[in-house]
Amino acid sequence: MKIGILGGGQLGRMLIQEALKYDDEFYTLDPNADCSCANISYFTQGNFNDKQDVIDFGKDKDVVSIEIEHVNVEGLEALENQGVKVIPNSKIIKIIQQKILQKQFYDEFQIPSPNFQIILSREEEIVIGFPFVQKLNTGGYDGKGVQVIKDENDLINMWDEPSVLENLVDIDKELSLIIAKNKRGEIKSFPVTEMVADPKLNLLDFNISPTQISEDIQIQIDKIAQKFMNAANSEGLFAIELFLDKDGKVWVNETAPRLHNSGHQTQEGNANSQFEQVYRVLKNLPLADTSSLGFSGMLNLVGEENFIGTVKYEGLEEVLKLPNTYVHLYGKGDTKPGRKMGHINVLANSREELLEQLISIKSLVKVVS
Amino acid sequence: MKIGILGGGQLGRMLIQEALKYDDEFYTLDPNADCSCANISYFTQGNFNDKQDVIDFGKDKDVVSIEIEHVNVEGLEALENQGVKVIPNSKIIKIIQQKILQKQFYDEFQIPSPNFQIILSREEEIVIGFPFVQKLNTGGYDGKGVQVIKDENDLINMWDEPSVLENLVDIDKELSLIIAKNKRGEIKSFPVTEMVADPKLNLLDFNISPTQISEDIQIQIDKIAQKFMNAANSEGLFAIELFLDKDGKVWVNETAPRLHNSGHQTQEGNANSQFEQVYRVLKNLPLADTSSLGFSGMLNLVGEENFIGTVKYEGLEEVLKLPNTYVHLYGKGDTKPGRKMGHINVLANSREELLEQLISIKSLVKVVS
Repeated sequence: MKIGILGGGQLGRMLIQEALKYDDEFYTLDPNADCSCANISYFTQGNFNDKQDVIDFGKDKDVVSIEIEHVNVEGLEALENQGVKVIPNSKIIKIIQQKILQKQFYDEFQIPSPNFQIILSREEEIVIGFPFVQKLNTGGYDGKGVQVIKDENDLINMWDEPSVLENLVDIDKELSLIIAKNKRGEIKSFPVTEMVADPKLNLLDFNISPTQISEDIQIQIDKIAQKFMNAANSEGLFAIELFLDKDGKVWVNETAPRLHNSGHQTQEGNANSQFEQVYRVLKNLPLADTSSLGFSGMLNLVGEENFIGTVKYEGLEEVLKLPNTYVHLYGKGDTKPGRKMGHINVLANSREELLEQLISIKSLVKVVS
Repeated sequence: MKIGILGGGQLGRMLIQEALKYDDEFYTLDPNADCSCANISYFTQGNFNDKQDVIDFGKDKDVVSIEIEHVNVEGLEALENQGVKVIPNSKIIKIIQQKILQKQFYDEFQIPSPNFQIILSREEEIVIGFPFVQKLNTGGYDGKGVQVIKDENDLINMWDEPSVLENLVDIDKELSLIIAKNKRGEIKSFPVTEMVADPKLNLLDFNISPTQISEDIQIQIDKIAQKFMNAANSEGLFAIELFLDKDGKVWVNETAPRLHNSGHQTQEGNANSQFEQVYRVLKNLPLADTSSLGFSGMLNLVGEENFIGTVKYEGLEEVLKLPNTYVHLYGKGDTKPGRKMGHINVLANSREELLEQLISIKSLVKVVS
């Protein structure tokens, strides 16, 4: 089968890596000829934000999917009209890629998400209470395009673009659910994971699986997942990022219509990985068993501040000596501050052991140049 | 690092697949432009049995290795003389690729292997007792170039080529040990596995890990492994195929200086796979933990008799529904009788459960066209 992926980054790379267990042909489209997928797939250099590029790339594929949601949706719609299978469908990608549509979607389908106000420019009257988060309608990614406005004096820092203004949730835990649906209607989720964010870079830092939550919270999450999948009405693999607040209520932060950083530890931590699962969705195969094999966790390898250029990984050899530890690099030659260069998965027998091990590994490795 | 592999078959493919966790560049040399590695590496179409092709391919690589032992050794020697790292070294590849040298090597280093006679043609006097196995000096692979000569009347069937004639061992079990050594001198083996051969195709069929053997047998195997690694005096990953006879004595059947079919179940069955281990050898990294995670086994997917052409896998979807079961296909478009097209790994809690599951899966899948 000819499988086309918009984007040639690490998510695509790990999908192709997993799918090398099977016999399909992977095609990727990316503007960067040095991208993570360029040498392991049939590669087309082009712009996935350009309608014609998307159409030209996708028209002879059996299925087209994405590894980044910021792609040209009109191109995907045109492909669907030509009879090309697009997973997830263009409609849900369009909703998710615009924060305003995404919030309205949650509202429409009564999916709990933080109280919000939509503004098209900074001139509009702010009715939401302080403090709030400003999220740009488009262009946000990996923590970019998001800022907190603390009080009236802070208003001067607001971006003058269409945005969602959202009340801050009093967060107890950040959770994530990865869930998949295939054409035959099977739906399967991975055990809920827990994120620990690095306050400085706002990139996902540790991710722990499974999280320890009460039955009530699990039920809230299951309901949200069910509502979301009904409303999305699309095949695909989705990551639902959740806030658990200090009153024990679960809110949707946002969703991603694709493979997600919060699922990386499934590579060794679960019976099958999120990458295997998305492959099965693309082929409409029976969904894979998602059981946890124990406690697992992940830490991102992110370019250190002040280092730009050919990447070097300090301390990596020490990490390779550790049992239950798996290094994943993304085939990126150059580092820059905050760039995701790889991740490390860790398996453990308890949550405590896992956190200890993750913290110890984090102190060992530095991504420099 | 630029890593060159002679051969572009499934062993190379699965090595590259595993090593996509890291940042190296893989180059492959194979006569077949449709080979399993062609589209996932920097591919050169050429003949790994041709001295000049090997030199031209290897001269600008940081390390050159093999995924098939039938390669031009003079080319590898020339590369070594030019300062290219060759793993395993050309000397041990040369010994292993010629059955006569291999047997003499065991003799010289007192590695127990079945009693034998060397002949250069059929005209020589046969002094070994019946029945015996005739193994052609070169060209044997996957059971080809090997035949049993039962008695005097059978002598007419003997091949008229340089051969090893070897006494049959009264086999209780066929075992295999995969062992690796890196430049820094670390040596690590995987738990001993047990093979169950398909009598018709003489291809490895089931492979079970770990095998259940007494301490005495484990000690015999450890001694053999130690002697072999000392004698081979080379970095690399080796598969030592063993016979356990009915008197409890262990003999070396033959060795392979490369990744081996008897190690495929390490992909999901062990903390790290043989593919990860060979990668670490090629990079002189700390060797990986080889522990078994439980019972695991493997069955080959081999082209059925009477089917030639574009491959179809009957029953595969049923297999994909099973837990603890992992399908690996080799990206080969065409099947023919006896061709290795893929394998299936199975995890289980006991040897009995494992065998039951393997037998049940074997009855489900057919490789047809």
